[in-house]
Amino acid sequence: MIRILGVDPGLRHTGWGVITMDGPRLGWVAHGVIKPDTTMDLADRLACLAMELRKVVDQHTPDESAVEETFVNINPKSTLLLGQARGAAMVSLASAGLKVHEYATRKVKLSVVGTGGADKDQVAFMVRRLLPRAGDVSADAADALAVAICAAHHRPVSSQRVKA
Amino acid sequence: MIRILGVDPGLRHTGWGVITMDGPRLGWVAHGVIKPDTTMDLADRLACLAMELRKVVDQHTPDESAVEETFVNINPKSTLLLGQARGAAMVSLASAGLKVHEYATRKVKLSVVGTGGADKDQVAFMVRRLLPRAGDVSADAADALAVAICAAHHRPVSSQRVKA
Repeated sequence: MIRILGVDPGLRHTGWGVITMDGPRLGWVAHGVIKPDTTMDLADRLACLAMELRKVVDQHTPDESAVEETFVNINPKSTLLLGQARGAAMVSLASAGLKVHEYATRKVKLSVVGTGGADKDQVAFMVRRLLPRAGDVSADAADALAVAICAAHHRPVSSQRVKA
Repeated sequence: MIRILGVDPGLRHTGWGVITMDGPRLGWVAHGVIKPDTTMDLADRLACLAMELRKVVDQHTPDESAVEETFVNINPKSTLLLGQARGAAMVSLASAGLKVHEYATRKVKLSVVGTGGADKDQVAFMVRRLLPRAGDVSADAADALAVAICAAHHRPVSSQRVKA
């Protein structure tokens, strides 16, 4: 059984979700949203994001992690902020010794909903169906769980064998 | 006497420079460039950047740090990569307990060269003049030392008093 941590990074809201994968079966472990205090300096907000994510890793001991490849077709200032949040999250995961996989948004949606053009509500709906124990998941956490599900579907066969 | 660490983040080359400020006098302490192995995964490169920067902090014990506000008017993919490098650097500095100041590129150039539109060579030339002991500084390290010089010029009077 493998534990996968999915992360949807953002400076205001960083969603995270941990699932298990036991052969073809997926199970829900935990999820949440990290919201650094917006009154802090940028560097402190990023450090808070990294630290809280590290606590998630320490508590739920995933075997690997996955981050959504951010949508970059927005304004440069937003892209830079998103990049910074993503950098903070990836440093935290890699420093904890985790392999960090990256998946394009389209691939995540395709993997969970069956179409790359699905909207946020459809993703959340399917995440709740695939992981009924997760309950009523917020959009940010649903995106993070979706990344974890995508990572589970795309695990290389070799690494599945190793763990089996 | 205050020690200031200036950082010019980038995924391929992250320049850093440490200076001292003793009243109006500036002194050179050290500088260098961090170049994470480009064959590594993105997350590992970011973690390497953060770890190497932390070593610089541990070795040169700056009192505060400064990072250049990145120029965002480039293509979104580059902006995202730059943002990630910047996020990794800021997490490293803030996690080490350092205050991280941010200065716009224009302000850095204005502070060092006297004009906000100065080019990279002019910045490097003035950095060598202001910090003769630095010797022949590479462009990346010169930019980092320039950020540190800018931070020294813009230190709030109150914090200068506290340290005095």
